[in-house]
Amino acid sequence: MEFTTGSIQQKGLELADITAGAYVNQTVTVHGAVHIVRDMGGVTFLTLRKRDGVLQCVCAPETQLPPEESTVVITGVLREEGRAPGGYELAAERVEVLSSPAEAMPVPVSKWKLKLNLDTELALRPVVLRNLQKRSVFKIQEGLVRAFRDTLEQAGFTEIHTPKIVHAGAEGGSNIFRLDYFGKKAFLGQSPQTYKQTMVGVFERVYEVAPVFRAEKHSTTRHLNEYTSLDFEMGYIGSFYDVMEMETSFLQNAFALLEREYAADLKRLSVTLPKLERIPCVRFDEIKRLASERYNRPIRDPYDLEPEEESNIGRYAKEEWDSDFVFVTHYPSKKRPFYAMDDPEDSKYTLSFDLLYKGMEVTTGGQRIHDYHQQVAKMLSREMHPEEFESYLMIHKHGMPPHGGLGLGLERLTMKLCGLDNVRYACLFPRDLSRLEP
Amino acid sequence: MEFTTGSIQQKGLELADITAGAYVNQTVTVHGAVHIVRDMGGVTFLTLRKRDGVLQCVCAPETQLPPEESTVVITGVLREEGRAPGGYELAAERVEVLSSPAEAMPVPVSKWKLKLNLDTELALRPVVLRNLQKRSVFKIQEGLVRAFRDTLEQAGFTEIHTPKIVHAGAEGGSNIFRLDYFGKKAFLGQSPQTYKQTMVGVFERVYEVAPVFRAEKHSTTRHLNEYTSLDFEMGYIGSFYDVMEMETSFLQNAFALLEREYAADLKRLSVTLPKLERIPCVRFDEIKRLASERYNRPIRDPYDLEPEEESNIGRYAKEEWDSDFVFVTHYPSKKRPFYAMDDPEDSKYTLSFDLLYKGMEVTTGGQRIHDYHQQVAKMLSREMHPEEFESYLMIHKHGMPPHGGLGLGLERLTMKLCGLDNVRYACLFPRDLSRLEP
Repeated sequence: MEFTTGSIQQKGLELADITAGAYVNQTVTVHGAVHIVRDMGGVTFLTLRKRDGVLQCVCAPETQLPPEESTVVITGVLREEGRAPGGYELAAERVEVLSSPAEAMPVPVSKWKLKLNLDTELALRPVVLRNLQKRSVFKIQEGLVRAFRDTLEQAGFTEIHTPKIVHAGAEGGSNIFRLDYFGKKAFLGQSPQTYKQTMVGVFERVYEVAPVFRAEKHSTTRHLNEYTSLDFEMGYIGSFYDVMEMETSFLQNAFALLEREYAADLKRLSVTLPKLERIPCVRFDEIKRLASERYNRPIRDPYDLEPEEESNIGRYAKEEWDSDFVFVTHYPSKKRPFYAMDDPEDSKYTLSFDLLYKGMEVTTGGQRIHDYHQQVAKMLSREMHPEEFESYLMIHKHGMPPHGGLGLGLERLTMKLCGLDNVRYACLFPRDLSRLEP
Repeated sequence: MEFTTGSIQQKGLELADITAGAYVNQTVTVHGAVHIVRDMGGVTFLTLRKRDGVLQCVCAPETQLPPEESTVVITGVLREEGRAPGGYELAAERVEVLSSPAEAMPVPVSKWKLKLNLDTELALRPVVLRNLQKRSVFKIQEGLVRAFRDTLEQAGFTEIHTPKIVHAGAEGGSNIFRLDYFGKKAFLGQSPQTYKQTMVGVFERVYEVAPVFRAEKHSTTRHLNEYTSLDFEMGYIGSFYDVMEMETSFLQNAFALLEREYAADLKRLSVTLPKLERIPCVRFDEIKRLASERYNRPIRDPYDLEPEEESNIGRYAKEEWDSDFVFVTHYPSKKRPFYAMDDPEDSKYTLSFDLLYKGMEVTTGGQRIHDYHQQVAKMLSREMHPEEFESYLMIHKHGMPPHGGLGLGLERLTMKLCGLDNVRYACLFPRDLSRLEP
């Protein structure tokens, strides 16, 4: 009869143990994957890939070395060695092979810079991600999500999990995936919008990190058909500026966390963290005009921002306020969804915002309508049918606090921070018009 | 020109501020929803619902009080009052109304015990969740997820986000939702299995908290068609017992966290946390025989556990080892998926386990095949076509460490912990055969 007791026995050292320095000149055991083997004549270097970096192992020339991507346990004496990555080197005495690949890598994953065309890279993603630079992108992504949660937990938000199979789209339009749900028509959620608003009535402040689905027929460098949305929604706001302050606080915390705990990944990708003491906030129509004038580009669509306009606004913010970020506020009502609250001072505009990061929209947010009659009226003015939204309107009917929130595209934020030129590189296994695999 | 600075100004007190005691006999401001108003003749009690509990406010009889589910800001003097929930009471001097409901609640949400039939409750979920007991279930759920992440982060796991629209099902079978993906056939992920294994080759240890989709035509008290799966996968394991130890550690941390930070929610639901020093581990065929003998129930299906058998095994574990939990190990190969590693000592069985909690399966896990030739051979023996799994088999072909992991159903764990008799009560907005809304 056996029992588990929850004791987690560490088998072998991790890199953090090694760089802490306590094991110098001791015999230690380390596991990992054989990242690269270099025969230097009199001596062979084996670079061991571990979850948080690499360890240089030096092997006697007669050692039988397993092929790259074998997984091994190496025993040897740990030495300080200034020329080795991380400053330590293992003088291998014994190499035990745990597993062996059936074939060599299709691409040289152990290279520092792995230059592949997009299609090749994405097709080979399961192994390409073993490249140190490639995987660092997703450590940074992890840090962003951790900071999002930490910030919101600290501020009294409750994490929620809402359904992705839904009976109607939150954002309207045709950009929605349809599926058959036991003979009924169903859709994949474009946003947790209605659910997170509902939960504001329960917990005041809520957040969710989850996939959203957009059947957009765009093939651009910034669109994915499935992405991870960082959503929050907060009640009892004074104005939608509270939402923008919360996002600013999140970004500040994120960059601080990355600096503190992800320095190796940032360095590997040559990322310089933006300074973020403040973010300028400019009205939609004002910044549109300013950017148009400065960069001599006529305004074609008065209701929305074209990608080139976003890019110019980003440039303007950099030049004028030395900021990578800019909040564009008061979007035209016409282009915002039915739940957006109109500006009481001019109902052509809404109490809403987008956050642009280096000239690309990464967040959409704003204040929502909380009053039942106002919400029904806005639906009717758009020729929508309130009776189709019964379970959503239930929350307005029975009382909701003033509230607002936002949705942030994780992959776009990661892309811009890491300086990637295609959002697909910021998604482990991207979904686009032609890609369903891996 | 305005700038955000990331400063989060707290408007009014939260309950935690109040119960910390520093504001007694001071004039304070508090926001919240009017949970219930009781006219006691000479005095009126207004219970203010806040995100983490309720605050009793006492109002002079002449005060004009807004209807229930209005949201308000109340200013008054805070007093210690032993008879009030939490030990404090606000002597209201001013009640400012932020928003008003259009209609009274359809059910008495402010009651302590809200007894509704399942259909009514689920149809009215958006407002029923405002009931204090109902919402406490989801605070406890939040705590479980926090502990899951904390445990794994501490143990060096990396959080990942993998696609839910997939080209093939990980678990096989017909229980899969189909959708049209730009003219191509696609499915909704039943599990992140292939992706999390892939990421073991990259980060050694990974986890994901995300929705999974099962088109099961069961209508039972324990099935949902969409649920939140807590998944992890770890490389360099010595055996699948390492996976079970990690899960045991998670559960221990979860109960410790709940005890520390969710005492009010546990109390509201009369939940007694299980003691969890150790979890018994018994082989599938052995426990099946033992339970069959003790409870005099013949074995009908030698390859799987029927719900009543699971229940009997739970009873057996309670009687024999005083444990709410029991790991059932070495499931028959026949009933386990193609990626499960067979027991080298007897290939009729696998190196796998289920965790039963109070007689219900809440987790399935085990060691996976890491060798390419072994994986291809197992696929062929099942008349599967390895060429259809090219991007999955890529990881085996190019080297994988020994690894294993598990998937845990969050709603089932919540259900059993909170003593709910239907898993739907442990899901904010459940999806079942007949339910797509809200």
